[in-house]
Amino acid sequence: MAGRLEVERWGIFEREFAGPSDGNPFKEVRLSARFQYRNRIVEIDGFYDGDGTYRLRFMPDQPGEWRFVTSSNAPALDGLRGEFVCTAPTPTNHGPVKVAGTYHFRYADGTRYLPFGTTCYHWTHAMEETQERLTLEALAGSAFNKVRMCLLPTGGMTPPLLAFEGDTPGQLDKTRFNPAFFAHVERRLDDLLALGIEADLILFHPYDKGHWGVDNMTREEDTYFLRYVLARLGAYRNVWWSLSNEYDFNTFKSIEDWDHLLRFVQHHDPYQRLRSIHNGTKMYLSSHLYDFTKPWITHQSVQHWDAALTESWLASCAKPVVIDEISYEGDITRRWGNITGQELTHRFWQGMAAGGYVGHGECFADRPSGPWISKGGELYGDSPERIAFLRRIMEEAPADWIEARRLGTYLLDYLGAGQQAYHEVELPDGVDYHVDLIDAWEMTVTPAGTHSGRCRIDLPGRPYLALRFRAASSL
Amino acid sequence: MAGRLEVERWGIFEREFAGPSDGNPFKEVRLSARFQYRNRIVEIDGFYDGDGTYRLRFMPDQPGEWRFVTSSNAPALDGLRGEFVCTAPTPTNHGPVKVAGTYHFRYADGTRYLPFGTTCYHWTHAMEETQERLTLEALAGSAFNKVRMCLLPTGGMTPPLLAFEGDTPGQLDKTRFNPAFFAHVERRLDDLLALGIEADLILFHPYDKGHWGVDNMTREEDTYFLRYVLARLGAYRNVWWSLSNEYDFNTFKSIEDWDHLLRFVQHHDPYQRLRSIHNGTKMYLSSHLYDFTKPWITHQSVQHWDAALTESWLASCAKPVVIDEISYEGDITRRWGNITGQELTHRFWQGMAAGGYVGHGECFADRPSGPWISKGGELYGDSPERIAFLRRIMEEAPADWIEARRLGTYLLDYLGAGQQAYHEVELPDGVDYHVDLIDAWEMTVTPAGTHSGRCRIDLPGRPYLALRFRAASSL
Repeated sequence: MAGRLEVERWGIFEREFAGPSDGNPFKEVRLSARFQYRNRIVEIDGFYDGDGTYRLRFMPDQPGEWRFVTSSNAPALDGLRGEFVCTAPTPTNHGPVKVAGTYHFRYADGTRYLPFGTTCYHWTHAMEETQERLTLEALAGSAFNKVRMCLLPTGGMTPPLLAFEGDTPGQLDKTRFNPAFFAHVERRLDDLLALGIEADLILFHPYDKGHWGVDNMTREEDTYFLRYVLARLGAYRNVWWSLSNEYDFNTFKSIEDWDHLLRFVQHHDPYQRLRSIHNGTKMYLSSHLYDFTKPWITHQSVQHWDAALTESWLASCAKPVVIDEISYEGDITRRWGNITGQELTHRFWQGMAAGGYVGHGECFADRPSGPWISKGGELYGDSPERIAFLRRIMEEAPADWIEARRLGTYLLDYLGAGQQAYHEVELPDGVDYHVDLIDAWEMTVTPAGTHSGRCRIDLPGRPYLALRFRAASSL
Repeated sequence: MAGRLEVERWGIFEREFAGPSDGNPFKEVRLSARFQYRNRIVEIDGFYDGDGTYRLRFMPDQPGEWRFVTSSNAPALDGLRGEFVCTAPTPTNHGPVKVAGTYHFRYADGTRYLPFGTTCYHWTHAMEETQERLTLEALAGSAFNKVRMCLLPTGGMTPPLLAFEGDTPGQLDKTRFNPAFFAHVERRLDDLLALGIEADLILFHPYDKGHWGVDNMTREEDTYFLRYVLARLGAYRNVWWSLSNEYDFNTFKSIEDWDHLLRFVQHHDPYQRLRSIHNGTKMYLSSHLYDFTKPWITHQSVQHWDAALTESWLASCAKPVVIDEISYEGDITRRWGNITGQELTHRFWQGMAAGGYVGHGECFADRPSGPWISKGGELYGDSPERIAFLRRIMEEAPADWIEARRLGTYLLDYLGAGQQAYHEVELPDGVDYHVDLIDAWEMTVTPAGTHSGRCRIDLPGRPYLALRFRAASSL
């Protein structure tokens, strides 16, 4: 077997081929491949990488022998064959994240995944190696395991490379992609993968302001872009698709447009990565969120400042809730960007105790590496270490802590911003509960005795406390 | 002129008469009087005070000579005449509080009145002199100038005296009042008056729970009670009428019932004291507040935790907003009773900066004098001194600070719970503004220079700050 090409399960198999470079190969040359494992066939698109180079990029999800054969309208690329062996994954490779049960996530190998996301919308756009290294170091030192990041620039940015060919505002050639741009993104996806961090890729956003012309493209341009992104980036097992940030701020598109684009991704993504869409201005009315019950949505990506609404979202749609934006710790003048670390920590606890997941962001006005949500860099806030503490608490919880609460085996009762002197609770009959008092801000866990039945637990009378009840038998 | 009876303006003229004591004088004897000042006539009801004693109690609102003549179906009380001279008020007597302009209040003599209310629902019910003295001392040492207080007991209380005759639950004689109970309330109204504190008397509430039978009376019983209360207590210039606390928790009454009772008070109150009604469960939907635009409502008495809605209430109804309940500082288990002093202070500032008035309450679980909102006693919280600070700030503001903001002469810009590093503002052209940085929690006022036009004011980057802009010419 020596010398046979091996690719680990959920890793990336890649093959390059030489092909035509005249005309517009992005548009004129179609390349696809059928990958076969036993009797199962997966069809994928290849992509043109410039300079007459074409690539197939594929993530095998089953160990064993795989073969492929290409199809193309270019004779040089048609009917090409190859094979490889998919091997067991390395220990840190748990596969892609999927929805688990109703409200949770796990990796493909069954390992639980608790999203503790953060947001660095444009951290890869300036393409400053030093800054990107800073970001990766900050992420490595944090508890964050998901990053929301945009593929397209805002109207206020002048990145050295863009997804499309050209650098003149309003005159990008949307029929040609920029391979160097994508290669850069791919290096960062690899970096994130090495850190065990999911990349929640934001495919569109409404911040172009008529500059580059990337938020008001035609449906054909949008899907042409999506198909290239799917072919190039879809094989990365840590990729999620966020169709848009603040979709409702985009006045060029209707709900029907978003439905179409989401369904397009659903249809063309051979891996069925997680898919959602993120709302903007209408965050204050939960009924105005995108209808997440639509079948092409895998989870509810919410912008809302009020984590107390989590239960209503869970009740109205049987999919996980990820509050990807809940206001940012920081000190800018906009109200969404100047909450305290204490308040952000509070909202994390509120959301998680209610059965949702919450995302982090930070934007301080005058710090050396700039605002984290835009440029990455360093983290300056008070919340990241508290969020790390919360992650440790949640990793000690049952995988389905919502169900455990219903069954009476585990309850994380977050007491919020009040300062009650004691907590009264009626515990299920006949079970002893080990109780811990948790201080979300001070990051302490203090045993608070064993209780049963109707009980009163005295509290130190300050905000940001939680009580954790664990049934003795389930310890 | 020596020996002639004198009563100061807005003070109380009172005359007692002997009359029949057989049968049920409360019900069977009608007594009224026509008070005349020049060509103006004011008709009032007298009331039976037990033991064959009848009283007329009247507040004259004009200096000069007043005369009266009684009418009664009891010959001994009919056609009685008298006179007195109304003199200038003593310096601390500013008269009753009225609505001023659209959104504010002032005393009858024109002195501004900024309601800084608190709540001691049943502080007069236990009739423990020591506790009531404690309460009055606490009020005297505070900035509070209005107290919400109930006339009727809750189902969980056994006060030594009740408004009605009898002490057996469910068997009170609602055709007979208890003069000793009312005499006690009157002493407390006098005490409040001496402290310059308005008494926001709550006439009904929904907390009887089927015990005393005072929240499910017939319309006839309700109006019979109201008429007696109006005749006895209406002459106190510091009385306001709050028709009910949490009216919507009372399942025995409809909006139409409340309309009827409010109109009854409107019709029978010769002084036209301030009138409102306080909502309960539906506080989360501002559209479910009682329709305060109804003509018998003088001001909007709101229960809501979100002071940010103040502007919407002002916009939808051209009457002052008083958020009489916004959650209480304390440490009980109910969420409405365990916010921190910091949070309550924050809500006061939010509401006032938006043009409303906010009320205080406190309920700590295990303190010597009991929970303030129920029993009065001592104040333990952190908010009262901050509220006193806010009152001083507001007393330095123009009387109509909402209009002053519109005119660009004064602006109190409360920056809230965020921690922005600086504040940018576009000031009206051609005017210099003296700016102060106010720390609502630390209770400091720091000059922040003179600014004009578009300016940036650096901030210390912590929550609970306000900026006060005063046009130089208006200083």
